[in-house]
Amino acid sequence: MKPLILVTNDDGIDSRGIRHLVEIMNHFGEVVIVAPDSPQSGMGHAITVGDKLRLVKSDLFDNDLSYKCSGTPADCVKIAKHHLLKERKIDLIVSGINHGSNSSISVLYSGTMSAAIEGAIENTPSIGFSLCDYDPNASLSHTGPFIKKIVQNALQNGIPDSIALNVNIPAVSNENIKGIKVCKQANAIWEEKFDKRYDPYGREYFWMVGNFVNHDNDPDNDESAINSNYVSIVPCKFDLSSNKGQDYLKKNWKI
Amino acid sequence: MKPLILVTNDDGIDSRGIRHLVEIMNHFGEVVIVAPDSPQSGMGHAITVGDKLRLVKSDLFDNDLSYKCSGTPADCVKIAKHHLLKERKIDLIVSGINHGSNSSISVLYSGTMSAAIEGAIENTPSIGFSLCDYDPNASLSHTGPFIKKIVQNALQNGIPDSIALNVNIPAVSNENIKGIKVCKQANAIWEEKFDKRYDPYGREYFWMVGNFVNHDNDPDNDESAINSNYVSIVPCKFDLSSNKGQDYLKKNWKI
Repeated sequence: MKPLILVTNDDGIDSRGIRHLVEIMNHFGEVVIVAPDSPQSGMGHAITVGDKLRLVKSDLFDNDLSYKCSGTPADCVKIAKHHLLKERKIDLIVSGINHGSNSSISVLYSGTMSAAIEGAIENTPSIGFSLCDYDPNASLSHTGPFIKKIVQNALQNGIPDSIALNVNIPAVSNENIKGIKVCKQANAIWEEKFDKRYDPYGREYFWMVGNFVNHDNDPDNDESAINSNYVSIVPCKFDLSSNKGQDYLKKNWKI
Repeated sequence: MKPLILVTNDDGIDSRGIRHLVEIMNHFGEVVIVAPDSPQSGMGHAITVGDKLRLVKSDLFDNDLSYKCSGTPADCVKIAKHHLLKERKIDLIVSGINHGSNSSISVLYSGTMSAAIEGAIENTPSIGFSLCDYDPNASLSHTGPFIKKIVQNALQNGIPDSIALNVNIPAVSNENIKGIKVCKQANAIWEEKFDKRYDPYGREYFWMVGNFVNHDNDPDNDESAINSNYVSIVPCKFDLSSNKGQDYLKKNWKI
């Protein structure tokens, strides 16, 4: 039987990245699309609390089941799993292709990866794919062979329980990419500046402008891999517990 | 010199929880408030991308610096750190008191905890406080002694770098709480149902209704502690890398 594959993203159902991903996934199984009806970049692991959700059929795809949802990427996974496909077993959830890198610390802010992590929470093998190019018109054609190889491995060799894969693909042509590397998350951050302006009514407002800063030169991290022209895969868990933190508090705190 | 303490939350600047927390924190140092101007529950680690931010003085508090921000809890921390207080060193960030539990998997969906984790990313000792009672009118008076003890320890004995503390306080009166326990995150999930309705125009919409399910009976996890009437502290990291996941892929995948 063909695997059942759910495709979602955070750039919205009409973005080029998800259309490219659906085309690739159609070779692997029965594809169901549930994606946000509006851009959801930077939504992190947000869910819709205290408000309604809409789920409306989309005619952007030839697939029988393709829907746009008014919620976040995590909502899309939840409504697909517990409403639309609740009688069936989803074999794989793929999210993306995101227009922009989700490497290192960006995994926390990423709607693309929150959909994949929600999949892992729900005990479904899940992968987020991102292209390290923020231009929504960037070339996607070189991503195909790498996505195919990764999806093939996921379907044949599995992903451990409670783990979602964060895949980032360099923004260069296929022939220049050296291969695929399993990595850890680089310890980098976004340093923000706030660009103050005034609206026509004299009230101030701000644009948040982030500058990516990486001081982590470990060759085994995802930033190093991408900068060396490898596709990076970081297996991500959602148990945030820190053993080091527990030990420190037990030893040093007086509670 | 008195410590500089930033207070934020996700229920919004006018909620009872943050007012209670500010009152407590005023005993410890100079308190600056930057909190969302609207409820942000369930916002996870969302940040405002591609839209403006407002930061407007609030007169709800006697503190010199109290502001409401149009963004998410993580935005509040960023604009406080990199704009409002950019010339100063913040000694502690506290977020809450959240009206509702953020134990176990809820840490991922929680705006309260995303503010604390953003603080840890920015290298500032950070704590999220939540009361395990979703009633916005729930009694908060019993939380004071525990919050004070935890803040005292954080200021005197420190929190390790890159770690934020997730504190959950049972919803019972002070004399019944047995103490404070350092814990790990319980492996529980929210199982959703979607309640379908029709609007006056005949179009369907959904309410997402979550049911908390915990099969993890480890006595060292936060759910067990809370259910045994302890205040739980889970030290949380933001490096999601899974060593187990890396080992599995390196051994079993053909890439």
